[in-house]
Amino acid sequence: METLTEQILAQTIRVRPKESHKGTYGRVCLVGGNDHFGGAILMATEASVYSGAGLNTTLTDPSNFISLHSRLPEAMVANFTNRDELTDLVSAANTVVVGPGLGTTDTSLSVLKAVFDTVSDNQTLIVDGSAITLISKHDLKLPKAHLVFTPHQMEWQRLSGIKIAAQTDEANEAVRRQLGGTVVLKSHQTKIYTPTGSFLNTAGTPAQATGGMGDTLAGMIGGFTAQFADQTNAVLAAVYAHSAIADELAQSQYVVLPTQIIHQLPRYMHEHQG
Amino acid sequence: METLTEQILAQTIRVRPKESHKGTYGRVCLVGGNDHFGGAILMATEASVYSGAGLNTTLTDPSNFISLHSRLPEAMVANFTNRDELTDLVSAANTVVVGPGLGTTDTSLSVLKAVFDTVSDNQTLIVDGSAITLISKHDLKLPKAHLVFTPHQMEWQRLSGIKIAAQTDEANEAVRRQLGGTVVLKSHQTKIYTPTGSFLNTAGTPAQATGGMGDTLAGMIGGFTAQFADQTNAVLAAVYAHSAIADELAQSQYVVLPTQIIHQLPRYMHEHQG
Amino acid sequence: METLTEQILAQTIRVRPKESHKGTYGRVCLVGGNDHFGGAILMATEASVYSGAGLNTTLTDPSNFISLHSRLPEAMVANFTNRDELTDLVSAANTVVVGPGLGTTDTSLSVLKAVFDTVSDNQTLIVDGSAITLISKHDLKLPKAHLVFTPHQMEWQRLSGIKIAAQTDEANEAVRRQLGGTVVLKSHQTKIYTPTGSFLNTAGTPAQATGGMGDTLAGMIGGFTAQFADQTNAVLAAVYAHSAIADELAQSQYVVLPTQIIHQLPRYMHEHQG
Amino acid sequence: METLTEQILAQTIRVRPKESHKGTYGRVCLVGGNDHFGGAILMATEASVYSGAGLNTTLTDPSNFISLHSRLPEAMVANFTNRDELTDLVSAANTVVVGPGLGTTDTSLSVLKAVFDTVSDNQTLIVDGSAITLISKHDLKLPKAHLVFTPHQMEWQRLSGIKIAAQTDEANEAVRRQLGGTVVLKSHQTKIYTPTGSFLNTAGTPAQATGGMGDTLAGMIGGFTAQFADQTNAVLAAVYAHSAIADELAQSQYVVLPTQIIHQLPRYMHEHQG
Repeated sequence: METLTEQILAQTIRVRPKESHKGTYGRVCLVGGNDHFGGAILMATEASVYSGAGLNTTLTDPSNFISLHSRLPEAMVANFTNRDELTDLVSAANTVVVGPGLGTTDTSLSVLKAVFDTVSDNQTLIVDGSAITLISKHDLKLPKAHLVFTPHQMEWQRLSGIKIAAQTDEANEAVRRQLGGTVVLKSHQTKIYTPTGSFLNTAGTPAQATGGMGDTLAGMIGGFTAQFADQTNAVLAAVYAHSAIADELAQSQYVVLPTQIIHQLPRYMHEHQG
Repeated sequence: METLTEQILAQTIRVRPKESHKGTYGRVCLVGGNDHFGGAILMATEASVYSGAGLNTTLTDPSNFISLHSRLPEAMVANFTNRDELTDLVSAANTVVVGPGLGTTDTSLSVLKAVFDTVSDNQTLIVDGSAITLISKHDLKLPKAHLVFTPHQMEWQRLSGIKIAAQTDEANEAVRRQLGGTVVLKSHQTKIYTPTGSFLNTAGTPAQATGGMGDTLAGMIGGFTAQFADQTNAVLAAVYAHSAIADELAQSQYVVLPTQIIHQLPRYMHEHQG
Repeated sequence: METLTEQILAQTIRVRPKESHKGTYGRVCLVGGNDHFGGAILMATEASVYSGAGLNTTLTDPSNFISLHSRLPEAMVANFTNRDELTDLVSAANTVVVGPGLGTTDTSLSVLKAVFDTVSDNQTLIVDGSAITLISKHDLKLPKAHLVFTPHQMEWQRLSGIKIAAQTDEANEAVRRQLGGTVVLKSHQTKIYTPTGSFLNTAGTPAQATGGMGDTLAGMIGGFTAQFADQTNAVLAAVYAHSAIADELAQSQYVVLPTQIIHQLPRYMHEHQG
Repeated sequence: METLTEQILAQTIRVRPKESHKGTYGRVCLVGGNDHFGGAILMATEASVYSGAGLNTTLTDPSNFISLHSRLPEAMVANFTNRDELTDLVSAANTVVVGPGLGTTDTSLSVLKAVFDTVSDNQTLIVDGSAITLISKHDLKLPKAHLVFTPHQMEWQRLSGIKIAAQTDEANEAVRRQLGGTVVLKSHQTKIYTPTGSFLNTAGTPAQATGGMGDTLAGMIGGFTAQFADQTNAVLAAVYAHSAIADELAQSQYVVLPTQIIHQLPRYMHEHQG
């Protein structure tokens, strides 16, 4: 298992070509946020926008439209229960993030299935939060796509069937191979299991142990995979940057809020581009 | 009566252990905010989040969901009149804050009763604002829990039956013993009556004499009691920090707004951790 | 006509007494903001809160509740068409500001009449914007109260019957005497006609010639009159501070937005207290 | 084709005359923002306000009122499907911006036609985004007004019939002459075709290749044309300032968000006024 270092940033965050437009930097669709957990999809979206993704659309419960635009007019919105719009928007995306604040109701399940029915194998799909729980509970068939799972340890137990105490690298890697994508197993030292090897993230701080950190990371992975060609590196760089920014802020803060990390992204990515 | 000093901070605000996750820092449920006083529960929630509580859920009138998320996507929301959700969420919390902006209508009373019916003796319950008035008015039976009352002098008169002019330490302590918890009696020099002694807070400034300060303090006590083991010290540290941050800001401000105090918490707590 | 100087600030903005609470700094009720001009009452309220008024309640169209709380949880809200609530809240205020964004519909008129029917002679009533137009159009009888009118030149023409070109000090003062209060006649050099003399404000900058400045001034006058005993000085100090802060900001800004002035108030008032 | 330099700013951004009021700096009407793309009209409005336009009204879907006021109380709002209000407000404006987030539904078309039926030849009309697509699709007759089109290359292809690869200066200028206004052809190096010559904007950075940049530029052109007499220079100065501010921010940011550019306008315009 390789330890991630700052080098992953320069290897991943490319200097932007002069001749480019917003389409060059990808299109991200973020799906989640019911009437209780709207903040989760707001943070995921904000993280994708501040990562530099070219176009961002949030598919969510309509009760979240106003708060999203109050914070972030840069994103577009659609009702996640409108199947036609979901199909159109998800199809048009490079990267789809599904799960932050999605919940586990029938509506949540129906939305998740619609996403799974729509994504295709040239797209990257980040599967986060409630979406992982729903897959586990309903034994959903995974779609063909570049899959990135972002469970914390309990969600990984649900998805993989491996009890937390038994979550060894070997066991985790075995299930990852079955799932066929990348697994970001979040804990105080996050491990990333990928088709090309496993990585340990030693960056990060207990100051970031607060609600919304996972949603923010999912959004960053969305923004990074939409922009940067090497999908594995994009995931690794997002994980590293997320923790490294928190480390910076924790030098003067007892707790680091997710939105504070997000707002540092443009500066941090500038300083660490390749 | 002992005078609080900065020492209470280092005794209370622990250096966060490296191996931890959001669950380590507690789960706070904040209940309040009707259709007139929604700002109160917003400030209480914001204070709890910026104090570093791991997970924060706001039970409030649905008309406050959007403004809460516009300011603070880090918190989750639920309708305080949905009894099943209230029961689930309140039961799952370490600390419950009830009262900021709750109002004194039949709905307010019903919500308060539901909270009282749900909390149990391993939880801390902060009873603030309208909740104190409702207890006094309806002679409600108090639940078994670690109770923290945060009345200003008029609310204390209503709750204790002691007229403001007669609110001596002895009289106050006598009623506190009957109530069985901690009393934070707010005035220009707040006094805290606890099972282990009484404390005087000489920090604080008239610049903070503005609406919302009490809601903010209640939220801070929520965040501190959820995170720090010694519940009495947690209350004392929150009271002290609230005033001391105001003192800092008042060096350059004629009035100090509650939300300005809140935003200083991560830095201030970092500087004063033990 | 006396020219206002910085001295009015030190004469007015008292050092806050140590033993005080939010009630010491007054209660302001701000009435206005229909479904088109909601921003006006938001700015007026924000100005009152940042001026340091102890308690602030906004009576407005319910469509403005969420945006107000998103910006400013420190204020309370009520529906301005609820007559009972309006009566209770207006009665309880030290200062009432009526007019910002109120509009000139039947509802607007009805709200204005309700305010006029409720205020009494120990209260200060700031009459701004649409309220002035409504008085002129419907020839409303003015209530007994400490009246402060804040017209721009065209509104003053409507209210006083004096054409803009004929608005001499003598003519203006004559109408002011009839009206019986204070008139803040806004232009690039605002004049203030009071029972104890007339004043010229030479502070101010064309950078502040933008929508919302008047609403902001009305809110500041609200906050100042609620806090400071001498009602005439309170008006003069608010007018001067409003322009002087704009002058400061205009040293580095082409346009100065109302909300930018508001956010400087706590610092500016600290620097200029008596 | 002339290359734009900083000189266009000093030639355009006049020092504000001391004797002036908000009416001196124009009245802008911004029309757009359906229930999916509300952020677009929020950014356009914010750009116009921060540019210094005297009065700004946003005609949009009512679902965008609250988010707009949460961000920007300085603007007024109206429902863009209310034909009478649209007629009144558009007629009263100096500059009308139509298109940001307008969409391409029947409602969008109806709103656009209403604007076209209302504007007259002494007004400036900025035609942006969806409005350009609608004109192309429905072959709408253009109104007599000072027209400014702000297409990106694909929208220009739709409007002009010239394929992107064939968009030479000669071909573009020929269609511009037919259209009879100014064309701002957005790409990584924007070209501006005007009645008095063509201009190349070499300022700008790939860091600004993100959603909402065009909406922001449209709003800035709205604010500049409303304030500055020479309408061609106003367009040129807005285009240059938009890119030049992005260049400044890109010195420390990997991505530059539209709202970040907007917030720099008051300072930047101050530094570059004539």
